[in-house]
Amino acid sequence: MNSFGRNFRLTTFGESHGEAMGGIIDGCPSGISIDMTLLDSMLARRRPGTSRHVTPRQESDRPRFLSGISPEGTTLGTPIGFIVENKDRRSGDYDKLINLYRPNHADYTYQCRYGIRDHRGGGRASARETVSWVVGGAIAASWLQTHGIKVRATLAEIGGVAATPEEIERKISVALKEGDSIGGIVECVATGVPAGIGSPVFDKLDATIAAALMGINGVKGVECGAGFRSASMTGSQCADIFYKTPTGEIATHTNNSGGIQGGISNGMPILFRVAFKPTPTIRKELPTIAIDGTPTTLSAGGRHDPCIAIRGTVVAEAVMAMAIADQLLEYKGLQA
Amino acid sequence: MNSFGRNFRLTTFGESHGEAMGGIIDGCPSGISIDMTLLDSMLARRRPGTSRHVTPRQESDRPRFLSGISPEGTTLGTPIGFIVENKDRRSGDYDKLINLYRPNHADYTYQCRYGIRDHRGGGRASARETVSWVVGGAIAASWLQTHGIKVRATLAEIGGVAATPEEIERKISVALKEGDSIGGIVECVATGVPAGIGSPVFDKLDATIAAALMGINGVKGVECGAGFRSASMTGSQCADIFYKTPTGEIATHTNNSGGIQGGISNGMPILFRVAFKPTPTIRKELPTIAIDGTPTTLSAGGRHDPCIAIRGTVVAEAVMAMAIADQLLEYKGLQA
Amino acid sequence: MNSFGRNFRLTTFGESHGEAMGGIIDGCPSGISIDMTLLDSMLARRRPGTSRHVTPRQESDRPRFLSGISPEGTTLGTPIGFIVENKDRRSGDYDKLINLYRPNHADYTYQCRYGIRDHRGGGRASARETVSWVVGGAIAASWLQTHGIKVRATLAEIGGVAATPEEIERKISVALKEGDSIGGIVECVATGVPAGIGSPVFDKLDATIAAALMGINGVKGVECGAGFRSASMTGSQCADIFYKTPTGEIATHTNNSGGIQGGISNGMPILFRVAFKPTPTIRKELPTIAIDGTPTTLSAGGRHDPCIAIRGTVVAEAVMAMAIADQLLEYKGLQA
Amino acid sequence: MNSFGRNFRLTTFGESHGEAMGGIIDGCPSGISIDMTLLDSMLARRRPGTSRHVTPRQESDRPRFLSGISPEGTTLGTPIGFIVENKDRRSGDYDKLINLYRPNHADYTYQCRYGIRDHRGGGRASARETVSWVVGGAIAASWLQTHGIKVRATLAEIGGVAATPEEIERKISVALKEGDSIGGIVECVATGVPAGIGSPVFDKLDATIAAALMGINGVKGVECGAGFRSASMTGSQCADIFYKTPTGEIATHTNNSGGIQGGISNGMPILFRVAFKPTPTIRKELPTIAIDGTPTTLSAGGRHDPCIAIRGTVVAEAVMAMAIADQLLEYKGLQA
Repeated sequence: MNSFGRNFRLTTFGESHGEAMGGIIDGCPSGISIDMTLLDSMLARRRPGTSRHVTPRQESDRPRFLSGISPEGTTLGTPIGFIVENKDRRSGDYDKLINLYRPNHADYTYQCRYGIRDHRGGGRASARETVSWVVGGAIAASWLQTHGIKVRATLAEIGGVAATPEEIERKISVALKEGDSIGGIVECVATGVPAGIGSPVFDKLDATIAAALMGINGVKGVECGAGFRSASMTGSQCADIFYKTPTGEIATHTNNSGGIQGGISNGMPILFRVAFKPTPTIRKELPTIAIDGTPTTLSAGGRHDPCIAIRGTVVAEAVMAMAIADQLLEYKGLQA
Repeated sequence: MNSFGRNFRLTTFGESHGEAMGGIIDGCPSGISIDMTLLDSMLARRRPGTSRHVTPRQESDRPRFLSGISPEGTTLGTPIGFIVENKDRRSGDYDKLINLYRPNHADYTYQCRYGIRDHRGGGRASARETVSWVVGGAIAASWLQTHGIKVRATLAEIGGVAATPEEIERKISVALKEGDSIGGIVECVATGVPAGIGSPVFDKLDATIAAALMGINGVKGVECGAGFRSASMTGSQCADIFYKTPTGEIATHTNNSGGIQGGISNGMPILFRVAFKPTPTIRKELPTIAIDGTPTTLSAGGRHDPCIAIRGTVVAEAVMAMAIADQLLEYKGLQA
Repeated sequence: MNSFGRNFRLTTFGESHGEAMGGIIDGCPSGISIDMTLLDSMLARRRPGTSRHVTPRQESDRPRFLSGISPEGTTLGTPIGFIVENKDRRSGDYDKLINLYRPNHADYTYQCRYGIRDHRGGGRASARETVSWVVGGAIAASWLQTHGIKVRATLAEIGGVAATPEEIERKISVALKEGDSIGGIVECVATGVPAGIGSPVFDKLDATIAAALMGINGVKGVECGAGFRSASMTGSQCADIFYKTPTGEIATHTNNSGGIQGGISNGMPILFRVAFKPTPTIRKELPTIAIDGTPTTLSAGGRHDPCIAIRGTVVAEAVMAMAIADQLLEYKGLQA
Repeated sequence: MNSFGRNFRLTTFGESHGEAMGGIIDGCPSGISIDMTLLDSMLARRRPGTSRHVTPRQESDRPRFLSGISPEGTTLGTPIGFIVENKDRRSGDYDKLINLYRPNHADYTYQCRYGIRDHRGGGRASARETVSWVVGGAIAASWLQTHGIKVRATLAEIGGVAATPEEIERKISVALKEGDSIGGIVECVATGVPAGIGSPVFDKLDATIAAALMGINGVKGVECGAGFRSASMTGSQCADIFYKTPTGEIATHTNNSGGIQGGISNGMPILFRVAFKPTPTIRKELPTIAIDGTPTTLSAGGRHDPCIAIRGTVVAEAVMAMAIADQLLEYKGLQA
């Protein structure tokens, strides 16, 4: 379904070339000041058209809040409804796609599931959907801040190399020139999460965050702490040794666990890495088939990011904030 | 909480050194013949004590079914309750752990969450819990078989090398001799899944499976299709090109998508890879702290697998079967 | 939380004097033609200002659909987002309520729950919220029609007497003259529901419908079939005797069960009766307290129905349609 | 499905003549002392065979707790698994039912839903199922006690008259003599519930409790506070006038609201009334049909209560305790 979370819950709607995107944030505690500066900065990082690294589609992306927030910007505890109008819809760009299945996109699978689809821009499978996730994430982050919790995601690798500014510039240039796209790896860190958050069996904190991150458009892999590297380690290498800090807290010398043990936070930073595939829609010509199965080719027009991992950083941040908020609410309910 | 799935739902209970493990499988359609041979073979693969590769703890692991199945072994559509008694509980093995936090285990995090814990064998965080998952998985697989769907997981790597029988033997020998443990990578494949299964936004099929797999004890990373490799690829390299098969189906030449596009199955095999960390509890002495924070050391007794990935294969199979069954039920409800 | 249903799910937002009401309908199958005539007629029955029997507040109540529906009015299977703007907001009417708790209203309880409240028109507790329920109900009903299922609710009693047009007229006149309000009883009937819908234990069809109806503003009682009368009957009086119809179906001579036995539909009409209390906000002066506890009095201005049961009929219809749609989806998923 | 509650959740299994009944209680906070005296007394009130007023089937009904509780009887915070063996199963009593549909029972509807059924004793539709509810209720009540909350249900009416000991005796005698059964009304009161519990829209406290109560076997009607009587009242009659108590609390002079306003508790006692139909299975001969539709008659053997409302009191108590525990957990999670 189209809901995320059990206690802090975001439900969304919207096709990329329909009237509007939007959602409802349910379960946010009352009396929280929404950090509008954070919201704006997160939306700006997600917004296309801000540099040549990302799609030039112009979107103001300013959400219109319809409920749940007082005129002073404080949450009422009631559901927060919001919409983001789809203003810059050049559907004509997509006309040649009406009879095609784009490779690595969701055209074919939507057709199989629903027997009907909106061919313009991917409909509901478009990355445009993530604007609502960022709104939800900013509100979650506003609440988490009051508990001293911060979530931050950055680009770690692009096209297989470390993501220094020069490498980003170089890789993007090559991709744009060739009408192609490239993948990347994003690192997410949550600090200040108290020890004890997360359920030990089926709603493990790492499982919840993994689902949140794997659900982002284009993500094909997720790892926590030492992740895939731990598969090559021995138990004695992998062990995070406990010690008592001068201020009396319990910490570990290393963090191969990524801040989570047995599905529950241990007070160390929570660390995830996320693999984004390259943008599937590219200018370079690719073979594909028409909906009747006849072979054809596709050179995609439209406006697309050369590397979705770049804008993916803030989306990763948003879903991780929501996942932690969700578990924090459950945790607080269980305290005496 | 302790439930997995929305339509096909497993809820479990049990501490490893308590009276019994068990669970309730809810939502299984009526009239399905439980494949008891499959169940036995899955339980045998999960069972400790079957070779020197796995912990010598003896468990018969035969579940006692209490409801939901007719005397002839056919599901009634009502919830299937089952228990697995904990017979071979040598709690004394764990006495020295009462005042310790074991590294990379859930002792400390349970203490933080609940303020109370069962120090024997990890309580609810023990891998013993997965016996219930295998029961749930075998029943899900019994239903999936009637739709031509099969799930199979195998060990792909052990300690960083390809898992040939000789390498498994060699790596295990070294680990046992050194009182240490090693990690591994498991590959999971589901075949026969029809195109169209999975929700496109928050209950994406890949997100659901990722959560299921990440929730397995010791798993630190999950990837689908090309996974982390896709982060180094270009869009034209990564594209799975569609074609029409001689029998008129739509397929792709490669499967970088791992059978899932836009969160929905495309009819190709569903491919996942899962990274298991090395068993955290080892004989080799490790520094740690007592519950009051004073430094000490631990050389774990008890009976533990040198490589949890080996028995992890069948657990991965089980949760993947349940995740697919869950989404298949939703899919069928939506068809005209 | 603010969601209704598990498979067919409505999530809503909105304060009565905020920007807009609205919601998201998730889980509606694709390819369904929305019956816009039905939607308009249901909205008209719910709309205030249409006669002197109901509040004169003017609302066009036309929802703006933002997603999930094709230009031709067919569902896409994706979530249907909609908003209904709040245009006629005379918040000044409510200024004198800012420091008061109105009797039998939710002012005090909201204050206790959230520590903050919107005093204008009851905020989220306003009957205005039900406009979103009617939108959800009309869409559910559009789908149910394709299965031959119809839901209809009518006013059965007003102020303790049978609701003939003359009695309605007379009771309303008295109430308006005295600045008072009156209660009523609504009867709901669903026909065409196939036998076999509903879960037998905790999601019984009658329990699900009862929760849906009890959740309507002002409802204080719900009964199914013979309802409270059955408490005075003997088993032999209450038994619905089965017989085979000339066309070979199984039916019962009486319908004390209200179409539901053991929580599952038996193919007979589903019958519910719902008790609405009188509108709590009345012109007649009532004692109450200020928020600091000092005694005062209140003669409510604003615009209010003399009998909420009248407009309650279509709301009852809407939630019953959604409850049945929800269970029908589950039922279909379980069929071979 | 077979789960009740969102935060405090009971999942159950079991057919009345299968191996065992049982369930899993998930979400109970850790560190709670289970009140075993309360549990025993609640089970005793539910147990058949304790007087001639109830079915003479002998059941010890002592649950075997398998997890989640320390040897000292304190909750661990992990799921509490329990089973209750079905020892006194005289399935032969039910042999003549194999080809019949009993009137007002769930035989026919189970057949429609599942295409298969256990004819012995109603299978999962049997009142035997409620033994698990009482276990869940007793554990919920143990936790609620630590917050000063008590739930109590009593028989208010039997066969249409006030339930004095003499009338109960007289009504039961008549019913037994005539091989018939009678209905009754149960009153439930929860005291000590703090103001502010319950969600205002779809998880209203009254809607949640109504679903819980309507889900009890044989319940056909539920009302809160003035309930159906409020349909005959005017707004000024129905208003619960607020006042400040000498100790500074806010209370109301009357309690027509039944302690709930706008779906949220107001601190007054929570009052519900529940209508139980007469036991459907009676000794008196009734016409019915065989499963092939041919007319026949049925004079039920087996062992059945003349009035299910009597044992229904403790079941009502149990589900009400669980419903309040569920909402209390959510409420606590939202507090600053």
